[in-house]
Amino acid sequence: MPEFALIERLARAIPSRGPGVDLGIGDDAAVLAPEPGKRLAISSDTLNEGVHFLPGADPEALGHKALAVNLSDLAAMGAEPRWALLNLTLPEADADWLDAFARGFAGLATAHELALVGGDTTQGPLSLTVTVLGSLPAQGGLTRSGAGAGDRVFVSGTLGDAAYALGRRQAGVGDSAADLSGTDAALDRPSPRLALGQGLLRHATACIDVSDGLLADLGHVARASGLSAELELASLPGSETLLALPETQRWDLQLCGGDDYELCFTAPPERREAILALGEQLGLPLTEIGFMAATDGAASGAGGEATPAGHGLEPGGNVRCRRPDGSDYTPARPAWEHFSRPGLSGP
Amino acid sequence: MPEFALIERLARAIPSRGPGVDLGIGDDAAVLAPEPGKRLAISSDTLNEGVHFLPGADPEALGHKALAVNLSDLAAMGAEPRWALLNLTLPEADADWLDAFARGFAGLATAHELALVGGDTTQGPLSLTVTVLGSLPAQGGLTRSGAGAGDRVFVSGTLGDAAYALGRRQAGVGDSAADLSGTDAALDRPSPRLALGQGLLRHATACIDVSDGLLADLGHVARASGLSAELELASLPGSETLLALPETQRWDLQLCGGDDYELCFTAPPERREAILALGEQLGLPLTEIGFMAATDGAASGAGGEATPAGHGLEPGGNVRCRRPDGSDYTPARPAWEHFSRPGLSGP
Repeated sequence: MPEFALIERLARAIPSRGPGVDLGIGDDAAVLAPEPGKRLAISSDTLNEGVHFLPGADPEALGHKALAVNLSDLAAMGAEPRWALLNLTLPEADADWLDAFARGFAGLATAHELALVGGDTTQGPLSLTVTVLGSLPAQGGLTRSGAGAGDRVFVSGTLGDAAYALGRRQAGVGDSAADLSGTDAALDRPSPRLALGQGLLRHATACIDVSDGLLADLGHVARASGLSAELELASLPGSETLLALPETQRWDLQLCGGDDYELCFTAPPERREAILALGEQLGLPLTEIGFMAATDGAASGAGGEATPAGHGLEPGGNVRCRRPDGSDYTPARPAWEHFSRPGLSGP
Repeated sequence: MPEFALIERLARAIPSRGPGVDLGIGDDAAVLAPEPGKRLAISSDTLNEGVHFLPGADPEALGHKALAVNLSDLAAMGAEPRWALLNLTLPEADADWLDAFARGFAGLATAHELALVGGDTTQGPLSLTVTVLGSLPAQGGLTRSGAGAGDRVFVSGTLGDAAYALGRRQAGVGDSAADLSGTDAALDRPSPRLALGQGLLRHATACIDVSDGLLADLGHVARASGLSAELELASLPGSETLLALPETQRWDLQLCGGDDYELCFTAPPERREAILALGEQLGLPLTEIGFMAATDGAASGAGGEATPAGHGLEPGGNVRCRRPDGSDYTPARPAWEHFSRPGLSGP
């Protein structure tokens, strides 16, 4: 199948028109008309076979996930999704694979009124790059750097399910990819928390999506805000499956598993009620899991060491985890790091 | 080297601030403030090792080219470059490779006042995706679809040098990659014709950049405009090296070689003088190479068959090539097509 035919096949299957699309797929570039008085949030992520997903992964799930992980970045900024570009590298032009991929992508694009306006298809080892653009108010917006000392830390949904499902699938004991009722759904069909992000524009001081693992991602917020963070392990929200695991296995999955695509955010204590009400309104559990503290150690209850050494995390090293008995906990696994640990397919 | 360190290394080497960058590299998404009253052109292209460039290619040349091929798309729209995102997939984190790549990218970004605002780095087979955003007036802009019957066809610079250099390099008889004075420069250091594209906003009816080969790319313009095109082979501009080749070898390189990144555009005959003056002002030769014709065959002098069969090009099949003696010429090689011919590294 020639490249032209591939692109046309994708463009037929995925919504490609929408507000602000003056010129879509098919020219040297797309032409977009941004809304007057708004700003743009833009993010781009690549998923590679053998690194970010297992060889032979279900193409429909991949289509969903390649878009979902990018929309999750827009959610973390509080942006409303508008447009996307897709760069698809395929070892061969397989019509069935392509149709299934497009179905997964189109389902999520349709749900969020997103138009596919460009990108390309090339030959090579399977790799998916999606770029998303969203609309933001002229002022405000969520960043990693706005947290204040004393702010509470919240997280949406549950943590650790995707990492648990990946571990089982790698060990050959996973549910089938088609079973979307359990932890596999978290791995294959993450739901970007777009409505939550937009609602948090009124409440949160900082926000990030949990892709690398809670410890690493909250570490990004703490570092960008010039603070440290403390987490109460007893508070970490988990699915029934996760809550049935031994404590340390569960904590490690929840702290370091990654691939959660929940939002972790901070807000002053007086916002707690409004935030919990927002969660109820969205039908999405929001859980308070800790607080932000000054890095001088004054807010740390155990010896004043604000950046505890020993868990080997950089730059998540400024997050302290408390067991239910008040003692410190150091997870066994480092956070997701492409270039400092072996990928799924080897080093 | 952890991913964070890779990103920071790139962000230090490549300009990352500029007009409209409210939030750059380092958060979940960049935040951009488009200029009031302007539109955005956006394009994204992927280059894969073994398909778009030879294994072991000079990383500094790759950094230049990955950006240049995308800027060339903005040039074809008449847009002014503003911002870029870079998705870099690397088999391993090699500091020397990364620094050389960043140098090549930064040189071109600096020359065009472009800010790198996002992207990611991942592990996998070497692949480079660049996304560029440019500014366009609220009205107008160049597309592929605006050509009219009777418009003249022009091309900038010379054609065929990059394909010639690639052929020599694959055969092991090329100049060294460091010799940028000859045809290698066209292959390794293409110059996106941004000033030309912006100048053509006042004159051209349609425009495309020559990446797939003149025949295929002019075919895109003809198809999008509902026309056919005729090329005078005697007019095709070539370097001294190309002009010294046997006629058919030269024509095939110029028609089908691709990777030229010149602009091919159409304009009414009365615009010819103004266009040639623009070329002189920019120090860039612009050559008239043919004309657009209605597809009913009325404008075709040889039997009225507007879409001659036989050269196997789709969708470039609506371009007729005339030898100096007036007879039709059909090139021996099909245009660049990722999925319908073997890549550089095999099928």
